[in-house]
Amino acid sequence: MVKEKKLKPSKELPLGFIDRQERELILRDFVISNIKGVMRKYGFQYLETPSFEYTDSIGKFLPDKDRPDQGVFSFKDGKNWLSLRYDLTAPLARYVAKNYLEIPKPFKRYQIGTVWRNEKPGVGRYREFLQFDADYVGTKNLQADAELCVLISEILEECGLSKSEYTVKISSRKFTKELLNELKINSAEQSSITLRALDKLDRLGWTEVKKLLGKGRKDKSGDFTKGANLNDKQIELLEKKMKNTTPITQDVLEIMKIFEYYKFSNFIYDPSIIRGLEYYTGLIFEVYLNMEFSDFKGKSFQFGAIGGGGRYDNLVSNFGNFDCPATGISIGIDRLIYVLLAKRGGAPNAFWTSKPVVVCVLDKSNFQTYVDITKKLRSSNINAEIYPGDGKLKKQMEYANKIGSPAVILYGDDEKKIDKVTLRNLETGKENSIGIDNLTNEIKKLL
Amino acid sequence: MVKEKKLKPSKELPLGFIDRQERELILRDFVISNIKGVMRKYGFQYLETPSFEYTDSIGKFLPDKDRPDQGVFSFKDGKNWLSLRYDLTAPLARYVAKNYLEIPKPFKRYQIGTVWRNEKPGVGRYREFLQFDADYVGTKNLQADAELCVLISEILEECGLSKSEYTVKISSRKFTKELLNELKINSAEQSSITLRALDKLDRLGWTEVKKLLGKGRKDKSGDFTKGANLNDKQIELLEKKMKNTTPITQDVLEIMKIFEYYKFSNFIYDPSIIRGLEYYTGLIFEVYLNMEFSDFKGKSFQFGAIGGGGRYDNLVSNFGNFDCPATGISIGIDRLIYVLLAKRGGAPNAFWTSKPVVVCVLDKSNFQTYVDITKKLRSSNINAEIYPGDGKLKKQMEYANKIGSPAVILYGDDEKKIDKVTLRNLETGKENSIGIDNLTNEIKKLL
Repeated sequence: MVKEKKLKPSKELPLGFIDRQERELILRDFVISNIKGVMRKYGFQYLETPSFEYTDSIGKFLPDKDRPDQGVFSFKDGKNWLSLRYDLTAPLARYVAKNYLEIPKPFKRYQIGTVWRNEKPGVGRYREFLQFDADYVGTKNLQADAELCVLISEILEECGLSKSEYTVKISSRKFTKELLNELKINSAEQSSITLRALDKLDRLGWTEVKKLLGKGRKDKSGDFTKGANLNDKQIELLEKKMKNTTPITQDVLEIMKIFEYYKFSNFIYDPSIIRGLEYYTGLIFEVYLNMEFSDFKGKSFQFGAIGGGGRYDNLVSNFGNFDCPATGISIGIDRLIYVLLAKRGGAPNAFWTSKPVVVCVLDKSNFQTYVDITKKLRSSNINAEIYPGDGKLKKQMEYANKIGSPAVILYGDDEKKIDKVTLRNLETGKENSIGIDNLTNEIKKLL
Repeated sequence: MVKEKKLKPSKELPLGFIDRQERELILRDFVISNIKGVMRKYGFQYLETPSFEYTDSIGKFLPDKDRPDQGVFSFKDGKNWLSLRYDLTAPLARYVAKNYLEIPKPFKRYQIGTVWRNEKPGVGRYREFLQFDADYVGTKNLQADAELCVLISEILEECGLSKSEYTVKISSRKFTKELLNELKINSAEQSSITLRALDKLDRLGWTEVKKLLGKGRKDKSGDFTKGANLNDKQIELLEKKMKNTTPITQDVLEIMKIFEYYKFSNFIYDPSIIRGLEYYTGLIFEVYLNMEFSDFKGKSFQFGAIGGGGRYDNLVSNFGNFDCPATGISIGIDRLIYVLLAKRGGAPNAFWTSKPVVVCVLDKSNFQTYVDITKKLRSSNINAEIYPGDGKLKKQMEYANKIGSPAVILYGDDEKKIDKVTLRNLETGKENSIGIDNLTNEIKKLL
């Protein structure tokens, strides 16, 4: 080995990955706690599959499957390929197939876990994100699909959203299937390009999507996307059908009836809902936020979907001779947190506790007292720390202010003489001389 | 593309990865809740770095760095290599370097996250596991190291371990460094093989480790591991020094003094503690469980370490001109859960709630009543579900028993006539006829 001048490694993160701070993480704890509470109440089992699966087992159901090496993070492992999960549904199908004889039928499970997408990262577009999934496996009964929509809305409301702030949009792959038949689109490629084009309606609008349905479209950057090559008549029919908001497929009519039993009305039927993943076979849902936000340039934008799902009646049967219909829904937890941070600024108070009171080190010979005070505060459930370093009082005060400490405790020669401590309130700047026995009470008043 | 007969994908998981069930996950929630409680009390900030880092940034500090492609999961990403984190310390060093100007100094953070090791999997040897880390960054003060040992013991006790069940073993890399000097071991390779051999003392004992210190060792499978090629005199001196349990380095003496202030005595000095990771520079800790378990063949074994850590004063300064000493400790949460499951069988009751009461579907024309009952129970915080499928009562009862439901609710023609429901206790088999208004109370009595 040739020794070269050692280069410093990068301090940066790869694109598409971020560090997450306390404010966001505590809000996440709040969201997850709400999810778990609702899932228990609805009788779902808690399950966790691992990050990695055989690439083969989870398949490639991502929208960009025309780029076979893209979309997922994969490794060669001996003779096999392993992939990091890109969703929680494909691993669930594998789990069900593997444990088919043991699981209750129907089987209801929820999972909260990170998923990875090896996509081109961009602003606000991450390559790892936290997802929550709830699924009913082994039932064709649309009551399952209805409950998924009801429970998602309960979770969102527990998190603090109001009914006017979200809508569950529903549609059905049966509708799109019939539509493709009507248009006489038989080739898998053409139908796949058509669906991908329609999936972009929300973002691009009809004018641009029509280009994608026809010859193709050049975007602002000059990149050209191949179109579905439909003729004008086909495109016209498509637009007409997609704009008709009267439900026509049986499954949509049936779930609307079940929603009535639940008095659940926070949904709309929207045939333009397509969903990216390929494995859906029936009803599909999209959880949509009716909120406007401003981007960093001050331009307002509609937030759009924070989750969705649908019926995937054939996914489990890929693994063997199972007839195992299923339906599921998922929420992008990071996206939900983004909204909650913007809307409410953080987790409710119950999820926060104050920053630690700092016991300053004025004189190492008093260290035993500093330890005793700190232990006493902690055992009274007051967050506390001895200044964790070396340095003059000025540096210690700077530290306490920097971390947002509510107060510091000073115990030096003067305090020792009168057997008291000085409690300095960092918000008001006021100092009080307090006996050690009263310290806990005084701090509790201050917090 | 040539169409071939489609092979069914594997239902199995890759070696070294497992599915985790509710009993374990709820116990994990309990452990994590204890960790968070203690960390807040001790004044640590909650932080989360992502799964991936530039390979270059997190370096290779694993014990098997002589196999450069092994140990971590890495991907080529454009021009760069990315790796899944193999611990939480190397990413923390990167975070500190990146945010050096903004963070408080000293900086105390904790993180709970999955780490991945691309090692040869084996029985009970996983390639992904959940880890908890607490670190003090930016201080040389050994009070930090002492608090790490104290807080770990508080976490273990909150989780239900008694003082006799765990010990914090401490030693120092300064001791091993002096020892290698005394033995006149100058080559990096020889010292690295020597340390790796000593790190196996716990598992192999002196007789076998002496082979690794000498010419090498053939294991049971016939595989030969190259030795450190020390001569008999060197090995003899090494053994003598390693067996001397009187602390000789200044840092060990100092932390023992600080432990006295904390009245913390659940530690021993053990010079045979080496720790695998290469970045340690001073004090090292190992959290050791003094418990015997039986393996699946009934053979008893010592559980050994569930975590550890130490001082890594040079890791952050790899990234630039920082002088940034640091110390940290970590716990393998999966290993702790294994022990707690064996010892106490599961999470405390407060972390569990009962399985759902099942509202059976006897007659679809009563569906509105089934929904109303279920909603009523849920709004009284009773876990409940309508039988989530189609099937005769027998199948529904089998389902309720399978999921461990405490009771089923029956409402058919007979019940409708007298405007009551039948509540069947699935533990006793007893049935009661109950007015819908009393249902919530009756079920609460039963739970």
